[in-house]
Amino acid sequence: MSTIDEPIDRQLAELARGTEEILPDGGLAAKLGQGRPLIVKAGFDPTAPDLHLGHTVLINKMRQFQEFGHEVVFLIGDFTGMIGDPSGKNATRPPLSEEEIRANAATYEEQIFKILDRERTRVEFNSTWVSELGAAGMIRLAAKHTVARMLERDDFSKRYAGGQPISIHEFLYPLVQGYDSVALEADVELGGTDQKFNLLVGRQLQQDYGQAPQVVMTTPLLEGLDGVEKMSKSKGNYIGITEAPGEMFGKIMKISDEMMWRYYELLSFRSLEDIAALKASVDAGMNPRDAKFALGREIVARFHDEAAAERAEAAFVAQFQQRAIPEDMPEVTLEADGSSIGIAYLLKGAELVSSTSEAFRMIKQGAVRVDGDRIEDRGLEVAKGSTAVYQVGRRRFARVSVV
Amino acid sequence: MSTIDEPIDRQLAELARGTEEILPDGGLAAKLGQGRPLIVKAGFDPTAPDLHLGHTVLINKMRQFQEFGHEVVFLIGDFTGMIGDPSGKNATRPPLSEEEIRANAATYEEQIFKILDRERTRVEFNSTWVSELGAAGMIRLAAKHTVARMLERDDFSKRYAGGQPISIHEFLYPLVQGYDSVALEADVELGGTDQKFNLLVGRQLQQDYGQAPQVVMTTPLLEGLDGVEKMSKSKGNYIGITEAPGEMFGKIMKISDEMMWRYYELLSFRSLEDIAALKASVDAGMNPRDAKFALGREIVARFHDEAAAERAEAAFVAQFQQRAIPEDMPEVTLEADGSSIGIAYLLKGAELVSSTSEAFRMIKQGAVRVDGDRIEDRGLEVAKGSTAVYQVGRRRFARVSVV
Repeated sequence: MSTIDEPIDRQLAELARGTEEILPDGGLAAKLGQGRPLIVKAGFDPTAPDLHLGHTVLINKMRQFQEFGHEVVFLIGDFTGMIGDPSGKNATRPPLSEEEIRANAATYEEQIFKILDRERTRVEFNSTWVSELGAAGMIRLAAKHTVARMLERDDFSKRYAGGQPISIHEFLYPLVQGYDSVALEADVELGGTDQKFNLLVGRQLQQDYGQAPQVVMTTPLLEGLDGVEKMSKSKGNYIGITEAPGEMFGKIMKISDEMMWRYYELLSFRSLEDIAALKASVDAGMNPRDAKFALGREIVARFHDEAAAERAEAAFVAQFQQRAIPEDMPEVTLEADGSSIGIAYLLKGAELVSSTSEAFRMIKQGAVRVDGDRIEDRGLEVAKGSTAVYQVGRRRFARVSVV
Repeated sequence: MSTIDEPIDRQLAELARGTEEILPDGGLAAKLGQGRPLIVKAGFDPTAPDLHLGHTVLINKMRQFQEFGHEVVFLIGDFTGMIGDPSGKNATRPPLSEEEIRANAATYEEQIFKILDRERTRVEFNSTWVSELGAAGMIRLAAKHTVARMLERDDFSKRYAGGQPISIHEFLYPLVQGYDSVALEADVELGGTDQKFNLLVGRQLQQDYGQAPQVVMTTPLLEGLDGVEKMSKSKGNYIGITEAPGEMFGKIMKISDEMMWRYYELLSFRSLEDIAALKASVDAGMNPRDAKFALGREIVARFHDEAAAERAEAAFVAQFQQRAIPEDMPEVTLEADGSSIGIAYLLKGAELVSSTSEAFRMIKQGAVRVDGDRIEDRGLEVAKGSTAVYQVGRRRFARVSVV
C-alpha cells in the first residue's frame, strides 16, 4: 500500500474520482497538506447488511484513503439502531438488541473486509459515546442547532410544507450523527448524496466544540445493470457481493459498453491512468467485450479469488460458444406495461417474431430461449429492470432490456 | 381541614374560583367524582425564589386542593435547571449545581409552607425520573410529538414566523414537563396561563403512555398595587411575602377598593360565601376601609402571625391619626412622562398647588409630605407604578397613583 508521502495532487485526483461533491472548496487539499494520517469516518446503519456493488462505491472510497495511509473509521450507528423507530410508524425498523447489532456488525465486517484492509480499519460503535451523553447531554446537543435550519433539510422542508408529520426525534438524529464526528475528531466524512445535510451538521458541531470542521465528501448512487435505475435490491438490477462467481461475472457482462466505463470509475481499483489507457485501446479498436471481461474478473476476484474469477470467465465463454450465442446481436430496450411485460409482447417488440401468435407457437414448439434456457410458459411475465438474451429458433437473437 | 367527602359542587365552585381555564370541559367534575384523593401537580423553576403575592395565587389553588383532601405535588424542575441555558444565549440562566438547587428548594419550602400544609405536600425533583431516561429515552420521548404541533405554540409560531431562532432543545422542554405528569400519574396540573400549551402536552403524553389524561387548570397573573400592570418585581408594584408586617399591611391599604375584591378572590382563604357577605355589607354602607383592613390582617397573619397583623394595623391607624391624614381624600391617577413624573408636576396635576413654582416654594418651606414624610428635594422623580398620599400644608391631601 502507498503512504501519505504520495504527492497531494495524486491523492486529490484519486480521492475526487467519482465523487459528487467535496466541501468546502479546497478543504481536502488543506487537510492532506497537513501531512498526517487523516481520520476518515463513514457511518453505517446497524441493520442486517446484504451489500451489493452500489454500496461498495463508498467503501471503495474508504479503501482509497486507506491506500494513501489515512485512518479509516467504519462507524456502526448502533445507538439509534437500538432505539428503532420510536414513533412506531415504521414496522420495518424494530429496535435491535445488542446481540443482533453485534451479529450484524460481524456480517458487515465479513463483507467490507473483502474491500478494506482489516488491519488499518477502526470499527467503532457510536453507542460508546452517545449513551454517555445521558438525557442532559442530549438536551445540550439539541441546543446546538435551530429548528429553522433543520427544516431547511430537503426532505424535512417538503414534509413540513406538505403537512406530513415530522417527529421531533428526527431532528435529533442528524445531531447524533454530527456528534459522532466530534467524538471521533473526524477530518473527513464520507456519505451518499442523501447524507449531505447531515454531514454538514457534523461540520457545524465540530466548530461548536472547538474542532476544525471535517471535509464532507459525497459519493453517487451507482446505476444498476439496466443502466437506468439506481442499483437496488427491490429493482432486481443489482449484483450482490456474496453472489456466486458465475452469477456475478454473467451479470457484469450484461451491462452496456457505456455503463462499463462508469463501473470502472466507481468500482475498479485500477488507477485513473490505467483506465484511461484501456479506454484509449477500445477507442482504437479493441473489442469492448475484453475490457468488460477484465472488469468482471477484477470484481469476482475481489469478492472471491483470482482462480474463481478465471473459472467464471471460462465458463461464461464456453456457455455462449456451446449455445452458439453470437457475440454481437441487436440491443433492444422495451418499456414495461406496468411492472412487467408478457413474453409474447417482448418477442414481438424485439422483432424476433412478427406477431404474438407466432410467439406463442414458437414457445409451444420449444424454440424460445432466455439466456440459453428453453422456456415453456407462454404466460411468462418479464420483470422491469431485467436484461437478457432472447433467442427464437437457431438464428434470431436480441439482448432485451425491460425498463 | 376538610376532606374529599365535601360535596363535589362545593369543591368545584371553590376550585374554579379565580381560574382562567379548566380543560377539558367537565374534566374536573369527572375526576372529583371518582371520590379518591387526586394527584395535583404544579411545577416550579429551581431558580432562587423570592415570592411575591402574585406567585401565591397558584400556591393558594394548591392549598384549596389540599383542604379538600387531595394530594399536592410541589415539583421542582431541577433537571432542566441543572442544564441552564445550553444555547449560552441567556446569561441569566447559568446551570445550577445540585447544591444550589437543594438550597433553592429549601428557600422555596420556607416560603410555600406559609401557605401549604407541610404534612400533606409531596416535594419532588424531576431529575429523579428524567435522568433515568438517558439519551435513548430522550429520543423516544422526542418521538412522541411532531414539529408542526410544537410550532403551533404561540411563542414558537411567532418566533418562527419572525425569523428568530428557536433552538431544538426548546422543543424538548415541554416534553420533559409533560413526562413529569406521566411519572407522577398526575390527575390535575396547575400553571399560569403562559403554561397552557405545556400542560396540554402533558395530557397527550399521558394518553400515549396509557394513562388517563390530567385536567389542566390555569391561574391568572395578579395585578400589582397600581391595579394596572401585572404584579412584578421589576415594576415595583409588588408585595414580597417576606416583607415586614408594617410594610405589607401598608401596601395592601394602598390598593383601590375595586382591586381589593380581586385580591379577595385570588388571595383570601375566606370562602366565596364569606366574601359575598362582606361585599354585601360594603354595598350596604360599611366602610370599604374596614374590609381592606381585614384583608391586610389576613395576609400579614399568613406570612407572619396574628399578633404581628394586629400590631401592623394598629401602627397604620396611629400613624395616620398622628399625621392627621384624613380617611377620605381625592384619588388621582396621573400618567408618567416616561418612567416617572417630577414632584412639582405631580402636585400640580393633583391640584394640590396651582403652579409648579408654588410647588417648589412649598417644598422649600417644608410644607410637602409624601405618606407623612416631609420631602426636601424639589427634583424628586416619582416612579411609575407608585401610589402614595401627598400632602401640601395642613389641609390639602390627595392619594396619587402614577401610571
